[in-house]
Amino acid sequence: MTTTWVPGADDSGYGADNLPYGVFARPGSPPRVGVRVGDHVLDLAGALGGAEFAAPSLNPFLARGSSAWRATRAKISGMLTSADSRPAVEPHLVPLAEVELRRPFEVADYVDFYASLEHAANVGQILRPGEEPVHPNWRHLPVGYHGRAGTVVVSGTGVVRPRGQRQPADGGGPQYGPSTRVDAEAELGFVVGTSTSLGRAVPVGDLAEHVFGVVLVNDWSARDIQAWEYVPLGPFLGKSFATSISPWVVPLDALGAARFAGREQWPEPLPHLARVADWGLDIEMALAVNGHVVSRPPYAAMYWTPDQMLAHLTSNGASLRTGDLYASGTVSGAEPGRQGCLLELSWGGTRPVRLPGGGERTFLEDGDTVTLTATARGMNGGTIRLGEVSGTLRPAEG
Amino acid sequence: MTTTWVPGADDSGYGADNLPYGVFARPGSPPRVGVRVGDHVLDLAGALGGAEFAAPSLNPFLARGSSAWRATRAKISGMLTSADSRPAVEPHLVPLAEVELRRPFEVADYVDFYASLEHAANVGQILRPGEEPVHPNWRHLPVGYHGRAGTVVVSGTGVVRPRGQRQPADGGGPQYGPSTRVDAEAELGFVVGTSTSLGRAVPVGDLAEHVFGVVLVNDWSARDIQAWEYVPLGPFLGKSFATSISPWVVPLDALGAARFAGREQWPEPLPHLARVADWGLDIEMALAVNGHVVSRPPYAAMYWTPDQMLAHLTSNGASLRTGDLYASGTVSGAEPGRQGCLLELSWGGTRPVRLPGGGERTFLEDGDTVTLTATARGMNGGTIRLGEVSGTLRPAEG
Repeated sequence: MTTTWVPGADDSGYGADNLPYGVFARPGSPPRVGVRVGDHVLDLAGALGGAEFAAPSLNPFLARGSSAWRATRAKISGMLTSADSRPAVEPHLVPLAEVELRRPFEVADYVDFYASLEHAANVGQILRPGEEPVHPNWRHLPVGYHGRAGTVVVSGTGVVRPRGQRQPADGGGPQYGPSTRVDAEAELGFVVGTSTSLGRAVPVGDLAEHVFGVVLVNDWSARDIQAWEYVPLGPFLGKSFATSISPWVVPLDALGAARFAGREQWPEPLPHLARVADWGLDIEMALAVNGHVVSRPPYAAMYWTPDQMLAHLTSNGASLRTGDLYASGTVSGAEPGRQGCLLELSWGGTRPVRLPGGGERTFLEDGDTVTLTATARGMNGGTIRLGEVSGTLRPAEG
Repeated sequence: MTTTWVPGADDSGYGADNLPYGVFARPGSPPRVGVRVGDHVLDLAGALGGAEFAAPSLNPFLARGSSAWRATRAKISGMLTSADSRPAVEPHLVPLAEVELRRPFEVADYVDFYASLEHAANVGQILRPGEEPVHPNWRHLPVGYHGRAGTVVVSGTGVVRPRGQRQPADGGGPQYGPSTRVDAEAELGFVVGTSTSLGRAVPVGDLAEHVFGVVLVNDWSARDIQAWEYVPLGPFLGKSFATSISPWVVPLDALGAARFAGREQWPEPLPHLARVADWGLDIEMALAVNGHVVSRPPYAAMYWTPDQMLAHLTSNGASLRTGDLYASGTVSGAEPGRQGCLLELSWGGTRPVRLPGGGERTFLEDGDTVTLTATARGMNGGTIRLGEVSGTLRPAEG
């Protein structure tokens, strides 16, 4: 493990091998870009200078591209590990307790994939019993859809229980009212830095040229609204009321030790989706309701890897913009207790999930706080932390 | 018809009763906001002053809200109709031939609806023969989905034939290659000016508080890619390669004489979607391939009206941002020759559409130019023109 001079940082999961980026604001000051180290934020505009760090979002820095990302990371790492730098750098460390964390970047387009075979199979069985749960296209391409970029919010933002049309269980006409099946989905999101021009596909080998890093994503879902609306054009209002992301973007460069070949795929993907590098990611997630872990989704179990998602997303010539976000879809493993949403954990609401103290949940209740955290192996031993993304469900309005 | 002092404007469809907004650039000058009058653009930064008009997009003006929109429209109308204003205003009229038109606004989120009953029924019959063509939810809510905002381009932008995965007709494994079923879709798009906060639904009566105006939309579609990918999460790469919009945003206030109650709906929509004002729009569209009109889609035939679309879109508390665009979906009438896409006009590619000179089309060929135009009655008699949106299909790259 690389050691820093920052008190408490080395064993915090936010040491020199992590260095995630975010946007923070001190009371009365405009937001600016920082890097988390232990329980501090390094104010980059102060420590490094540069207009891109005096900005209210990461987008200007993201747009600079992978060479700048790497050079900046090396510079920050040097500052925090060399005792000689301490006198000059320490004044730019701000205690986390003194800042407010903002959404780290302006989301351009938001895409949500469906890259877990276990999640797709479980949802298929629950929502379409008696039918083949996984559709014929699923093993040939990472199925995905566009979500609402304008309702991506940062961790800590309250989420209002959505209203919407639902088909009653008795088969009568649809009604409009507060969703009774609000769910959370544990996902990993990939943040695009470098844009492309229209008409050009990104080769599967170019992931690290375009994707800067990852965030944790809670893709809040209203299952009753979704079930009624989604045929034939896919999820819409069942998802668009809110998507929460973590305030810290962990650079891909911090995930080197978490990389592996990725889960075996059969049939072999077509050549434009065939993997050329190791972009499986061994990240262990934990999904908690009111502080109690209800699931430990294993990102390593994902079928499609992020390089394949990006190649697919652009394979029709669709361009990328700085700030594009694409999420993996719910992360679900095969073992019990490893599914990334309540729909699966409660098997469609039929098997309540027990909480300590005698409580239980099929779907979320008003006031419930959902928190997603994750860890991965760091580049030099030790553990790095992602996240966290947390949000509390508020009662429906009106 | 209100008359202007601008030569040729009154009978052009771009007279004082239209006054659509766009963004133009003179060679070597930065883009700025203008209003079309006949074959001229009125340079608003010059004629009216105001930082929001010296901008490269309409967004700052859109954000100012409906009172500002109305006041500005009245001011411009006065300038162009009063002979006294002519000496001061005429220097700010720029011939259209001397400018380049840009995408008129920065698209925040893009949503595409499916609001024509005839289109939904035709597509259902073509893509899912033997099944009930229109799904049970369709008459209860305007079905829609999110599209890719980053690939919305202005009229005149070339569109590259997309590559993608298709299932061969022989049922063998999927292949990746240029789409062989590229289609155009004639739609009307609604441009949101005033934002809302998260958790708040927009009442069906508040359309004109939030929507500034309309554009013509060609929602290019690759039917083979779409057919293979769209179950269960909806259209994605079959649509995301390009969506073309007209350079002129026609204010809702110019469409007063085109308004009517809207097509009758049965069953009655639930109360939150029940109409409270006349937002049916009698707009006649014309879809041309290489200059030959192949269809005349009647917007008046649409089942769901734009106030209902907006109320539905926000009914779960999803917020609006300045620059949000929502499109109607393909406009199709019941009569032959009134369907808004080649998929319907050629009935799934089985009945070629004849072009003059002996040509015919099922789907588009490289080099084809698709042009969508539209007209409506103006506020004081006469006709106003929307549009146009035009684009040429280029060969697949690589």
